[in-house]
Amino acid sequence: MEKIILTGDRPTGRLHVGHYVGSLRRRVELQNSGEYSKIFIMIADAQALTDNIENPEKVRQNIIEVALDYLSCGLDPAKSNILIQSQIPELCELTFYYMDLVTVARLQRNPTVKSEIQMRNFEASIPVGFFTYPISQAADITAFKATTVPVGEDQLPMIEQTREIVRKFNSVYDEVLVEPSALISTNQACLRLPGIDGKAKMSKSLGNCIYLSDSEADVKKKIMSMYTDPEHLLVSDPGHLEGNTVFTYLDAFCKPEHFERYLPDYANLDELKAHYTRGGLGDVKVKKFLNNIIQEELEPIRKRRKEYEKDIPEVYNILRKGTEAAREVAAQTLSEVKSAMKINYFDDVELIKAQSEKYKGI
Amino acid sequence: MEKIILTGDRPTGRLHVGHYVGSLRRRVELQNSGEYSKIFIMIADAQALTDNIENPEKVRQNIIEVALDYLSCGLDPAKSNILIQSQIPELCELTFYYMDLVTVARLQRNPTVKSEIQMRNFEASIPVGFFTYPISQAADITAFKATTVPVGEDQLPMIEQTREIVRKFNSVYDEVLVEPSALISTNQACLRLPGIDGKAKMSKSLGNCIYLSDSEADVKKKIMSMYTDPEHLLVSDPGHLEGNTVFTYLDAFCKPEHFERYLPDYANLDELKAHYTRGGLGDVKVKKFLNNIIQEELEPIRKRRKEYEKDIPEVYNILRKGTEAAREVAAQTLSEVKSAMKINYFDDVELIKAQSEKYKGI
Repeated sequence: MEKIILTGDRPTGRLHVGHYVGSLRRRVELQNSGEYSKIFIMIADAQALTDNIENPEKVRQNIIEVALDYLSCGLDPAKSNILIQSQIPELCELTFYYMDLVTVARLQRNPTVKSEIQMRNFEASIPVGFFTYPISQAADITAFKATTVPVGEDQLPMIEQTREIVRKFNSVYDEVLVEPSALISTNQACLRLPGIDGKAKMSKSLGNCIYLSDSEADVKKKIMSMYTDPEHLLVSDPGHLEGNTVFTYLDAFCKPEHFERYLPDYANLDELKAHYTRGGLGDVKVKKFLNNIIQEELEPIRKRRKEYEKDIPEVYNILRKGTEAAREVAAQTLSEVKSAMKINYFDDVELIKAQSEKYKGI
Repeated sequence: MEKIILTGDRPTGRLHVGHYVGSLRRRVELQNSGEYSKIFIMIADAQALTDNIENPEKVRQNIIEVALDYLSCGLDPAKSNILIQSQIPELCELTFYYMDLVTVARLQRNPTVKSEIQMRNFEASIPVGFFTYPISQAADITAFKATTVPVGEDQLPMIEQTREIVRKFNSVYDEVLVEPSALISTNQACLRLPGIDGKAKMSKSLGNCIYLSDSEADVKKKIMSMYTDPEHLLVSDPGHLEGNTVFTYLDAFCKPEHFERYLPDYANLDELKAHYTRGGLGDVKVKKFLNNIIQEELEPIRKRRKEYEKDIPEVYNILRKGTEAAREVAAQTLSEVKSAMKINYFDDVELIKAQSEKYKGI
């Protein structure tokens, strides 16, 4: 069976290095692996609206930012369909019918939804669209008959929800939908890169993100101000690694060859860590090392972004083409879904014939 | 402002005299009043699926029955658009976006939803599509910019839900949607016509309905077996009116002229009731009177139905045309909705220009 990927992001801001190590970098690798016959990268603006209804302009303005970040990271329109969710009405129709296949109680039990509701302080005022977004996500995944959904472990319940919907639909109607599998990221350090202040999550409102589009100077400034170990006051003091943001970032970004290039006194990250914990290694030195590594990684991304930024209409053009191609696939799936549901009455010659004969007493 | 009606039924069975006195008869009057510039009569198959997902065939088979009943009652395709809900995908898209404008708590408070959930013994296993159907109904009403929705009093909370969605959308985005008003039926006897066994509700599973498509003989048999007053054993006994199905039906169907034609010993219904309560009037006599009245009302309906039954493909043709015309209206509304939401990015020259200039530093 051909392997198809669906993945994407909510366009609520520029993408940051957390997105990069958590998913984007891998996504480009998967794209270039040649293992997947189709790749759909969705800018999930409709999903972003479910908890941004009071500020739709934020979503509208950030579609281009996410698209620029995608292209800059090496997502290639020739290999990956980049699409805008809201421009594919078929996804709404699939969502609409899938809602009959899931109970309210089942949605309430979804741990991802539970924790996201908590995170947003929604409590009693959860928008229905937000509450039901696992169903909308099932529509996104199945519309493209995705076999593979790259996710973090916290998103596993969402994939399970989709699998349940697929099984239910196929058993009630007909074998039309494909059960997707989660493709789990294994690098723990990459899954939840903290903000530069050491806070659990990078967040625009906390101002603790390093964006892929940040200038070289901004990135350096942010790294040099990074949260490390508050007890590591003198260079000679022993330092702690746990909760030390600089080392968390090194875990996510550092490769052995970086030492050769930027810090040849050490053979690898373990040696560096050992020195830091026994004392005698200053934060500034480690931060400069991290800065070199991250600048090396971000430089080509920044360069590509500058090129794409020169022709914004062309970026929209890429999105339009990707969306059109994706829409064709979704429309085909929806047509199969409706045939299986037998709600294509006007084309249903059998139905009309049988009912005619019934009334003619044949 | 032009006045536009939206109304309809779930196609889960043939329509019965309860539907007739409760809504259909009035609908034909409204159609013929000349007061409404557009009338949309919706066969709500998608809504019917929300609580019939295990038996979609029932819905599929009953669309033609409801259409035949509509046409037989005098709904005229030249004056009223009869449409099939599922064939208008724009309704799904509107539903999808309206879901962001309503909270889960608000849906849970909806008294109509509460009582319908109870009626269906759903308890913990309410399908999400059923739970959210007030939002889908708001999509139906607003898609056609309906000003007027004929309903029973129990449906008032549904209209209020729609009005809230309209106000919310118009305040967040732009003044696109029209707030509908409920047109309440005032004849109490007509609102909840009981089954012939005196049970509160006519229901196919209880076998206590008189269908519009029943033969003359069947109707007579059903009326002669109707539940009356169990204490009215001898003709001479005083009879009770309360809970007496025959008299409830007379309240709904009987007009003064019926006495002249079928029971000239009495001037009106009050005289008949007075005789019954003081004793000396037998059930059979009253039932025969009721039978005459109902047969008179059903005869032309039955006749028209026989005609339409001869050409089922033509009935589907009427539905197709009505649906196409309705879809144009819904598509126009959806286009206005999306423009107001500014999610028509590819056509949004302003957006693309502003973002181009931003990156060129203009």
